[in-house]
Amino acid sequence: MVAIATEVVRVGDAQVAAVLFGLGILLLAAKLGGLAAVRLHQPAVLGELLIGIGLGNLLPLVLDAGGIASARDEPTLRIFAEIGVLILLFDVGLEADLRALARVGISSLLVAVIGVAVPFALGFGASALLLPGAPALVHVFLGASLTATSVGITARVLKDLGAAQSTEGQTILGAALLDDVLGLVVLAVVTATVTAAAAGGPAPSTLVVVAIVAKAGVFLTAAAVAGHFLAGPLARAVGATGQRGLILAIGVTLCFSLGFVAEAIGMTAIVGAFAAGILLDPYGTGVRTESEERTLAELLQPLADLFVPLFFVLMGIQVDLASLADPSALLLGAALVVAAIVGKLACAAGVRTRGTDRLAVAIGMVPRGEVGLIFAGIGASLTIGTEPLLSRSTFSALVLMVLVTTLATPPGLRWALRRRDRRVLALPGVDHGPVAR
Amino acid sequence: MVAIATEVVRVGDAQVAAVLFGLGILLLAAKLGGLAAVRLHQPAVLGELLIGIGLGNLLPLVLDAGGIASARDEPTLRIFAEIGVLILLFDVGLEADLRALARVGISSLLVAVIGVAVPFALGFGASALLLPGAPALVHVFLGASLTATSVGITARVLKDLGAAQSTEGQTILGAALLDDVLGLVVLAVVTATVTAAAAGGPAPSTLVVVAIVAKAGVFLTAAAVAGHFLAGPLARAVGATGQRGLILAIGVTLCFSLGFVAEAIGMTAIVGAFAAGILLDPYGTGVRTESEERTLAELLQPLADLFVPLFFVLMGIQVDLASLADPSALLLGAALVVAAIVGKLACAAGVRTRGTDRLAVAIGMVPRGEVGLIFAGIGASLTIGTEPLLSRSTFSALVLMVLVTTLATPPGLRWALRRRDRRVLALPGVDHGPVAR
Repeated sequence: MVAIATEVVRVGDAQVAAVLFGLGILLLAAKLGGLAAVRLHQPAVLGELLIGIGLGNLLPLVLDAGGIASARDEPTLRIFAEIGVLILLFDVGLEADLRALARVGISSLLVAVIGVAVPFALGFGASALLLPGAPALVHVFLGASLTATSVGITARVLKDLGAAQSTEGQTILGAALLDDVLGLVVLAVVTATVTAAAAGGPAPSTLVVVAIVAKAGVFLTAAAVAGHFLAGPLARAVGATGQRGLILAIGVTLCFSLGFVAEAIGMTAIVGAFAAGILLDPYGTGVRTESEERTLAELLQPLADLFVPLFFVLMGIQVDLASLADPSALLLGAALVVAAIVGKLACAAGVRTRGTDRLAVAIGMVPRGEVGLIFAGIGASLTIGTEPLLSRSTFSALVLMVLVTTLATPPGLRWALRRRDRRVLALPGVDHGPVAR
Repeated sequence: MVAIATEVVRVGDAQVAAVLFGLGILLLAAKLGGLAAVRLHQPAVLGELLIGIGLGNLLPLVLDAGGIASARDEPTLRIFAEIGVLILLFDVGLEADLRALARVGISSLLVAVIGVAVPFALGFGASALLLPGAPALVHVFLGASLTATSVGITARVLKDLGAAQSTEGQTILGAALLDDVLGLVVLAVVTATVTAAAAGGPAPSTLVVVAIVAKAGVFLTAAAVAGHFLAGPLARAVGATGQRGLILAIGVTLCFSLGFVAEAIGMTAIVGAFAAGILLDPYGTGVRTESEERTLAELLQPLADLFVPLFFVLMGIQVDLASLADPSALLLGAALVVAAIVGKLACAAGVRTRGTDRLAVAIGMVPRGEVGLIFAGIGASLTIGTEPLLSRSTFSALVLMVLVTTLATPPGLRWALRRRDRRVLALPGVDHGPVAR
């Protein structure tokens, strides 16, 4: 009945369907990895990373999984990973309780500063010792990768132990938020340094570094101030429209836009995403619009549940286990683990509040997660001439550090809090918060 | 202090940030367009399309908006549009009430069959008359593009008029769901024909067409049967894990996977996405897991709120208004509008239930939306030799048809339902459902 043209070709639709299929499989693998980790009383992020490592390293051994191996370089997946990490930092910003932070005060600040400075110095030293031929920027990167405690992992473990409201818990959470901010400032400095170097300029002077720190500080402070004045009126305006999904669209657009601005002024996109979260902070957890039953943070949850695990599984896929077979890489990994743990244990010296268990606070600062991985990912995407700034083995050593610190924290923190409880029972009258189970 | 390597270059991160920024701007534009349309008592989809047309056609006139113009071909945006349309059809499948459909019975079936057959014939004829030189496949495509009523638009208008539960409303919704299914089967046939033609094979025989119809039927029926038996146990298994976000990940993965399978067996991905929705249907609206407060359809909502408007705004950007300046293109558009409206008004003949206003049902079937646009998009992505199957002007004519039918429905349906109410008041004792405002 119908004469068909014989040279009809479909362009791209099958490839698009294949990319989305791969995305779906990675997503499901990430969730199942997370589920398995939770079953074993470990943070979900650990399972997501490990399933990624498995997919990236073991699967190609048993079958010719070209699709998975090429996922290391697939540009679409890089975009989805980027969405995941931006949403993660946006969410951290949204849920950051700036007022509670102001109350925790001097202990948290001291713990955070020590917890950034000492691991940075130790990481820089370990790198300089073990990678004597590498450019100094590599040492800076490895040092900076050790600075930020993973708020998510710490908060989850404290919650599971019923210790989130204890003075130890409050000090840890406040310090972890502060060292996220400090870590982002360090990252901004490193990124700006790299950009200057790429433009062929000289190594920045102390004055330039101070200017960059000031820029990052102004950026984040401006976001907090803007949020204080704008979030309320914005909530009323959006509520008045009665349109569902509008606030989520505004939030995501602000997250991507400030990320773009941060990149444009020489910082990195996640600083912008975090600033967007801080800006909409009153909105995220408090203010609700009349058109929505849920807060912005709640509306963001399904998006975060999909995209964030995708980021971690893709980070895992990037890990090349074979590169760790090299004894020097394994040695670097071990040195970074030691630097990461010892560096954060030094935080104990910063605790000033009476009756607070110093060791418990210090152990609570040990886990490294998203920010460490983000540093590793950015370092791997930078190139010096034709070589990546962080080689595959250095990247893998960093991921090893994240895995070990994350694995070590739950049992360590459980032990420290129980030890504290036994002491406290012998010393009645000290306010010690809920007893850890 | 630090010697910096001078050849450091950042690879890609700035581009990724720029793509996400563009995505955010498009998203916000789509939501604001939808908001404006709702304010003017029009369906949101209309505003999303029009804002896309404005961005694609007017903005390049006032500024050198290379980014927007190139959005027509940006591969990343195509992936996001595809996610949007897959989630849309997944959602339609999830919310399809198969049992209610079985109850509406013969009227809906007759209305659906007439509403698919007559517009197809009229569209085919109009195309054959006005595009005499085009391959027959173009006529098939244009005819098929006129078949499916937009469930979303109709449901929204009926709800706004308080007439969703009237016999007219129930008949329209049942028929609209059925003609979605019939439209997808037609699309499966057309796609398989194209694939066969691309492989250099002959035009398919009647037998082959019957086989394709059977394949699509089996695919959708298998999904419904699998859902009937599997959705309950799946809900219990997922609930037992207590892991948040798992069911959403499973749903999205199933949606993308069945989309991939549908492509692989020669149908199109949206048939698979719809089948995934049908499979998880009991889950979507009814069954809840213990670990979630919300149903799958509710969890999907924030994703749909972001990705679906993105699909429509990108469809609008594809429209080249200049191509409609050609009188023959405008004539084709006008002919398609007439074929679309007259074709669905013929549905009035299918209404069998006593006391149901035939004209109101027929007008309720007029709006075309997502499926028509999907046909247009697929047609534009196909090529015959080096030419696209649907030229830019034919594509724009189809979008014009979607715009006019969508614009005409709300006032038309309001008028028909008021007219019915006046008649019904003169004929007491007939069950006519709630009175339309």
